[in-house]
Amino acid sequence: MRRGFYIGRFQPYHNGHQSVLEEIARWADEIVIGVGSAQLSHTPDNPFTAGERVLMITRALADLACPIYVIPIEDIRRNAIWVAHVRSMTPPFDVVYSGNPLVMQLFAEAGMEVQSPDMYERATHSGREIRRRMLCGEAWENLVPPAVIDVIREIRGDERLRQIAGTDE
Amino acid sequence: MRRGFYIGRFQPYHNGHQSVLEEIARWADEIVIGVGSAQLSHTPDNPFTAGERVLMITRALADLACPIYVIPIEDIRRNAIWVAHVRSMTPPFDVVYSGNPLVMQLFAEAGMEVQSPDMYERATHSGREIRRRMLCGEAWENLVPPAVIDVIREIRGDERLRQIAGTDE
Amino acid sequence: MRRGFYIGRFQPYHNGHQSVLEEIARWADEIVIGVGSAQLSHTPDNPFTAGERVLMITRALADLACPIYVIPIEDIRRNAIWVAHVRSMTPPFDVVYSGNPLVMQLFAEAGMEVQSPDMYERATHSGREIRRRMLCGEAWENLVPPAVIDVIREIRGDERLRQIAGTDE
Amino acid sequence: MRRGFYIGRFQPYHNGHQSVLEEIARWADEIVIGVGSAQLSHTPDNPFTAGERVLMITRALADLACPIYVIPIEDIRRNAIWVAHVRSMTPPFDVVYSGNPLVMQLFAEAGMEVQSPDMYERATHSGREIRRRMLCGEAWENLVPPAVIDVIREIRGDERLRQIAGTDE
Amino acid sequence: MRRGFYIGRFQPYHNGHQSVLEEIARWADEIVIGVGSAQLSHTPDNPFTAGERVLMITRALADLACPIYVIPIEDIRRNAIWVAHVRSMTPPFDVVYSGNPLVMQLFAEAGMEVQSPDMYERATHSGREIRRRMLCGEAWENLVPPAVIDVIREIRGDERLRQIAGTDE
Amino acid sequence: MRRGFYIGRFQPYHNGHQSVLEEIARWADEIVIGVGSAQLSHTPDNPFTAGERVLMITRALADLACPIYVIPIEDIRRNAIWVAHVRSMTPPFDVVYSGNPLVMQLFAEAGMEVQSPDMYERATHSGREIRRRMLCGEAWENLVPPAVIDVIREIRGDERLRQIAGTDE
Repeated sequence: MRRGFYIGRFQPYHNGHQSVLEEIARWADEIVIGVGSAQLSHTPDNPFTAGERVLMITRALADLACPIYVIPIEDIRRNAIWVAHVRSMTPPFDVVYSGNPLVMQLFAEAGMEVQSPDMYERATHSGREIRRRMLCGEAWENLVPPAVIDVIREIRGDERLRQIAGTDE
Repeated sequence: MRRGFYIGRFQPYHNGHQSVLEEIARWADEIVIGVGSAQLSHTPDNPFTAGERVLMITRALADLACPIYVIPIEDIRRNAIWVAHVRSMTPPFDVVYSGNPLVMQLFAEAGMEVQSPDMYERATHSGREIRRRMLCGEAWENLVPPAVIDVIREIRGDERLRQIAGTDE
Repeated sequence: MRRGFYIGRFQPYHNGHQSVLEEIARWADEIVIGVGSAQLSHTPDNPFTAGERVLMITRALADLACPIYVIPIEDIRRNAIWVAHVRSMTPPFDVVYSGNPLVMQLFAEAGMEVQSPDMYERATHSGREIRRRMLCGEAWENLVPPAVIDVIREIRGDERLRQIAGTDE
Repeated sequence: MRRGFYIGRFQPYHNGHQSVLEEIARWADEIVIGVGSAQLSHTPDNPFTAGERVLMITRALADLACPIYVIPIEDIRRNAIWVAHVRSMTPPFDVVYSGNPLVMQLFAEAGMEVQSPDMYERATHSGREIRRRMLCGEAWENLVPPAVIDVIREIRGDERLRQIAGTDE
Repeated sequence: MRRGFYIGRFQPYHNGHQSVLEEIARWADEIVIGVGSAQLSHTPDNPFTAGERVLMITRALADLACPIYVIPIEDIRRNAIWVAHVRSMTPPFDVVYSGNPLVMQLFAEAGMEVQSPDMYERATHSGREIRRRMLCGEAWENLVPPAVIDVIREIRGDERLRQIAGTDE
Repeated sequence: MRRGFYIGRFQPYHNGHQSVLEEIARWADEIVIGVGSAQLSHTPDNPFTAGERVLMITRALADLACPIYVIPIEDIRRNAIWVAHVRSMTPPFDVVYSGNPLVMQLFAEAGMEVQSPDMYERATHSGREIRRRMLCGEAWENLVPPAVIDVIREIRGDERLRQIAGTDE
């Protein structure tokens, strides 16, 4: 049994994440998905709560053949103990899938296997673009799975983002 | 759609929890399961990590008809904001199932619907009894679902408990 | 101008506190009242929120000739920095009125003047007795100022205490 | 009885805040004033301690007809639980007066009544201008109530600001 | 080069610790000494600050042939990440010397070599006995190295202990 | 006996720090060296753990005539209590040697003697330059004591820095 780990902030979960996870699902028997910066919400860069992000991910991956565990991970602001923090909150995993240099370094120093194919790059920056479109009232729906559109509409997520964007904190 | 919330420490997850959740599954369309005191592990009263408990619960409920979300909830040591903390980490829910007086009071003060049938009492204290049996080398396996036995054996959970039980912290 | 400092948990504020503060008011021009363990509420020993306690104190002392500042003080769990913490949250004061040995020692080590007449002993343990009476349904109203009775009734404080008393945390 | 809530950092408290509070005093029977980022002091943007700010506000509003409660509020860095945190530290209030988009959104999501007349905009940025003047040795005294001048002089607040402004933290 | 790690609370540092460290010095080239619960002081069980304990240890071991590093370690209240926390604060070490079951288990789970000869038992409980004697005004000086007597006298440590012992927190 | 205090982040410890400490050693009988922001590591501005920095400093100062205490100091993010925090973690000291305006102000407000000769300016910004050179693959070795080169090579510190520099946190 091979269990893989993938982490992101998912603000919001989008098609880039979806394609990465579909790729990981080919190699792993189970996937643990960490929802990073879980304690943040209601900021321009982190508009959604951890619970809302858990809902987006679980709904969007409902048809994935591979079993998933979606786990909120609060920031601990201490890189040297972050890996231990992540591992304490998640089922044991064998391999980390990440293109983030810090994540790769921290797990590598901890002696974990890290996989970082080029494709993982795709997920980068799209969250920022989606939030920008929401703010400007442009179409963002085509960048996320249909289930995510439903969740954001249900919680009026784009309204929330526009409302809080006037603040600097 | 009716989503219910149930919280426990699950040290370990046992047959009492299982029967309560099977009962809740009759009434709710989806269940959010909070794994409380998520930051605690390796103590006589809290031997298992949040991740290990997530694994136990997910495996034991693999055949439940009702979709579940299993979410670690770290203690926040401030009762007045605990409900907000829980809600930020979980998908939105409509009703809380609990027999714990503090949990009931806090959600009630927050204006949430709380259900507390007598059966929820059953889950109480069994965790303590199972940990006692592990410590004394008595048979505990009949008090937990088969999937939980597998997880505890895989992580050598009962050995860990016996080892740490000599300490007072 | 002589500003005095007095701290307590005020769970709840009672006649013992009231008489101590009336005594202090004879000596000080202004009084800073610290509401200790401000982050705690909804426990058998700390049933009321800091805000509720601020309200009790302010109402009960409405007719005191001496101006007061009522300031919630969160626990910082580090005795060596507690005095600095208190001083950062309060207007500058000249003398500390306390009968608590730890409070006296910490302010004395910080070079502050500490006054501890015998009368300050009176306030001890009454909070515990009042909470016990609330739990048992006995009369507690004669132990607190009338304004405190109003606040506790408004927030249904005694009901809350009885409800949460079944829990151990 | 209608109790209103107003929050700011008050670095320092100035004439803009004063006029807003005088306006609120027409509508509310009592006002709860939250002193935000209470744990911050001795930085270029947050030179004054919470206690010093409490003193400024209380002194400046000594003649206000309306009773006030001045409460330090420490940052909790988790927007989703910030409203619960504020409410636990303050007497119960009915309406929030704010022009800050994040504050407005968070209280609105919590189901609270929020009032935001145009005039609340006036208070913005003046704190920054006053701190800039203190740094440059320009006259700032006409931007704050007389009582605030006294407090800042007593604690040598402008000297402190100039001293720490050379640091980057 | 073989660097060893030894941890204790050292409330206060005593002859039991001294003999254990002299024993470790035979096997290790350098010793890292962790001063546990560094954030605690001024309580009956933890009367001395971390800095005071660093001073006791360094003075008492001034003549040890083996180089030592004395490092305060704050509690992190999360056993699953405690080892990573310790390792981030200390120079890299190869072997842990401990007789504490929890410490042994946590380092063993992290894959570290743990040595636990019977002699390490000796250090247990003596701290408690020394504090008891200080409280009762009995002779305690023969249980600690001479350098520790000097430090405790300089800070009036036994007076402090007697003063705070009347409190329950 | 005159004990001096000097604090820095030491990312990494370099020749500027070395010459300042050699200067302080002329005036003080013992030196307490605080390793600031101890909890940070694995970021572009703070690549090294506290333990690694303790090792660099102790090794580089092995031949200093003056006894030293090297103490990790975690950030407490509250300037008003920072001095008390530092003092709780360190042996008592008589004079602070610093050229940092905030450090100077905080210790001065606490009534401590602060020395700030011009030479302390030299230490500034060199850490940044060394990290820049490591990132660019330029020679940095001549800016640090030989013992520091050994430590950084042993932990592959420059590789770590280059690896994590691609991230934004």
